[in-house]
Amino acid sequence: MLSWVKDKMLQVNLVEDLHPKEGFYRLGFTDLETKAHAHFVQIAEELGLKVYEDEIGNKMARWETDCEDQRYVSSGSHLDTVSGGGAYDGAAGVVASLAAIKLLKDEGFKPERPLEVICFRLEEADRFGVSTIGSKAMAGLFDENSFAHLKDANGITLKEAVESQGYKWEHVKNAERDTNDIYSFYELHIEQGKRLEGITDLGVVDAVTCPIRLEVTIEGENGHTGTTLMTERRDALVIASHIIQEVQEETLRINREEHKYPLMATVSQIKSFPNSISVIPGKVVLGIDIRSVDDHLKERLVNHLEKMSSTFDADISVVRKVNTSSVFLDEGIRETMRKEIAKTRDTVPVLESRAGHDVMNMQKKWPSGMLFIPCRDGISHSPREYAEIEHIVEGAKVIAAYYKLKSIV
Amino acid sequence: MLSWVKDKMLQVNLVEDLHPKEGFYRLGFTDLETKAHAHFVQIAEELGLKVYEDEIGNKMARWETDCEDQRYVSSGSHLDTVSGGGAYDGAAGVVASLAAIKLLKDEGFKPERPLEVICFRLEEADRFGVSTIGSKAMAGLFDENSFAHLKDANGITLKEAVESQGYKWEHVKNAERDTNDIYSFYELHIEQGKRLEGITDLGVVDAVTCPIRLEVTIEGENGHTGTTLMTERRDALVIASHIIQEVQEETLRINREEHKYPLMATVSQIKSFPNSISVIPGKVVLGIDIRSVDDHLKERLVNHLEKMSSTFDADISVVRKVNTSSVFLDEGIRETMRKEIAKTRDTVPVLESRAGHDVMNMQKKWPSGMLFIPCRDGISHSPREYAEIEHIVEGAKVIAAYYKLKSIV
Repeated sequence: MLSWVKDKMLQVNLVEDLHPKEGFYRLGFTDLETKAHAHFVQIAEELGLKVYEDEIGNKMARWETDCEDQRYVSSGSHLDTVSGGGAYDGAAGVVASLAAIKLLKDEGFKPERPLEVICFRLEEADRFGVSTIGSKAMAGLFDENSFAHLKDANGITLKEAVESQGYKWEHVKNAERDTNDIYSFYELHIEQGKRLEGITDLGVVDAVTCPIRLEVTIEGENGHTGTTLMTERRDALVIASHIIQEVQEETLRINREEHKYPLMATVSQIKSFPNSISVIPGKVVLGIDIRSVDDHLKERLVNHLEKMSSTFDADISVVRKVNTSSVFLDEGIRETMRKEIAKTRDTVPVLESRAGHDVMNMQKKWPSGMLFIPCRDGISHSPREYAEIEHIVEGAKVIAAYYKLKSIV
Repeated sequence: MLSWVKDKMLQVNLVEDLHPKEGFYRLGFTDLETKAHAHFVQIAEELGLKVYEDEIGNKMARWETDCEDQRYVSSGSHLDTVSGGGAYDGAAGVVASLAAIKLLKDEGFKPERPLEVICFRLEEADRFGVSTIGSKAMAGLFDENSFAHLKDANGITLKEAVESQGYKWEHVKNAERDTNDIYSFYELHIEQGKRLEGITDLGVVDAVTCPIRLEVTIEGENGHTGTTLMTERRDALVIASHIIQEVQEETLRINREEHKYPLMATVSQIKSFPNSISVIPGKVVLGIDIRSVDDHLKERLVNHLEKMSSTFDADISVVRKVNTSSVFLDEGIRETMRKEIAKTRDTVPVLESRAGHDVMNMQKKWPSGMLFIPCRDGISHSPREYAEIEHIVEGAKVIAAYYKLKSIV
């Protein structure tokens, strides 16, 4: 099993597409993502699964049965990466689900409810500022009108990107699946943190952090860098530097208080205009990512930033581009799988996911659960991202157990 | 004369090329600059001047004579703008020189030494981080090897840009002119400051500030914005925000001391990598512009920044992309022109130029002088840049006087 999983991880993470220093650029709705999906289809078909594609390009690899209850027992994840990402965020969950199917086939298991492995399209917010597009479409959370105009760094709209891969925008809404079409959903993912590492190989997730994402626009005034006295400037970048530090300092302050869940806030995007060596920056746009399972902490930081913004000599607008409440996963599945894992382990940590995942959309329509495996030094969204193949295999065994338990009518 | 100057200002500042809110984008070695040069040629030929072009595209509009002394009495400026620039920085000096020729023609003046109006190519550092490329080539200061690889924001090299306008890179060095080819040079420019405004319409320049330009690269570490605890980050943008503020604060500190010339420092460029909403910035590159006639003050700030850079938990490199000493203009020309202007005015301010200009290169090879006219609120490198046509006309009269005085053998 080890070598099979290793082999398939390499098949969906083509070395030819890897930038040696910067990592993968397998962004959603690019040819690279589509190529990875083709490899998923190939592996699934080798396993004897029948592969279907929905109207936005999500793949469903199915082990069909003639059971009366045709609700699918589902598991899966995504294959896209951030810019400069690693080989495990998403891919580990997809390959582990396929590996679970292989385990069941090898032992001659016969499911009652049909099983399926889902390979979602664009999960990372990297490209368009909105995440989990594929699972949003499947769960009926796809906002056709507002999403159509989302643009990537090259000015390509989401609509154009989706259609560039052969799908019709006006048909995307048909990717929504009926409540009675899925029995339950389960996702394996690398933790992207340091809570499991060195302690155990598997953790059960109870909740998924969802972000507030702000676009802060600071309007100061252009001017000549040589002739405008320091005391006569309205330099938007100097003001931005104060906001960047306040995001950092206020978040540290909040975390020094007693809270069950931590708050993370990052000014992860900055664009300065005109960004010319001899012109004082007249305008700066910041992208701020704010996360916690505790939605109140997110609100506290946003309110603080809105307040402080009014204290500067500039026109500052604070817009919520993304504003989603955190999601608590299905207790039944969590407890069942925790007990299952506990059979062979002394300790089974229950922890929250500090990143958003496709499972958060699936949970809104179907009972869903999530499994974490460790990743080295907690590093993710980086070429240094790494997880043990052994841990993916252990995860696959848990997914196999999930398929078994849930496929019984 | 007023309507002629106004008309010609409009001819070199085509409204069709004006972005109503952002201003002009007539960058050096673009089709827009070339189009403006074509209009210069047209106006010059209407005045009966013979126009020559050198190997980098500088134009010389000449009033030729059969005097034994064939050294040209020169005056001129440039027509390129920064990104989001105004209609007067450069253009005012070009049109005023042409207007001076018209005044002399109208009064039937017969020059001894030949006269010329120079329209330089790329003066603004905006596009390639290096300024006054055209006059550098004319004065023999063109560094062919290091300049060839300068890149603009779109990755186009200076060599490619020059050749895109029809010039041969290997011939550019031939644009250098012999010491005996020019008798003297004079440039009119808007002040780009507030020292003349409301006091008088003309000022005489004694020195030109030249910049030190730093490229500061901060190497932190990428990471997932949701899963990397605030206390476990090496966020390059947070470190950059400290440097941006230190540039501001230290420069204000230095200016609070007693100095003849002020210091200006601006973080005018910033690029963050990967600049993705869900990734902690792992790398930030800053462009810092530092100016003062007092070269010691520039050095003090650079040393301060180099020292503080070593105090952060990141690899920070500080590289001097530009490192030029300030230039003092020819005393003879300055005094002659100051006395000339004083004939009709009570006060003639003598002030330094806080921006670099083509004259600083010309002074290195030929006796050169400079004349300032006010610009509203001191605003420049901005669409709000504005100068009175009356002041351009008064400047044209001074240039005409300069041509007369210097053309006499």
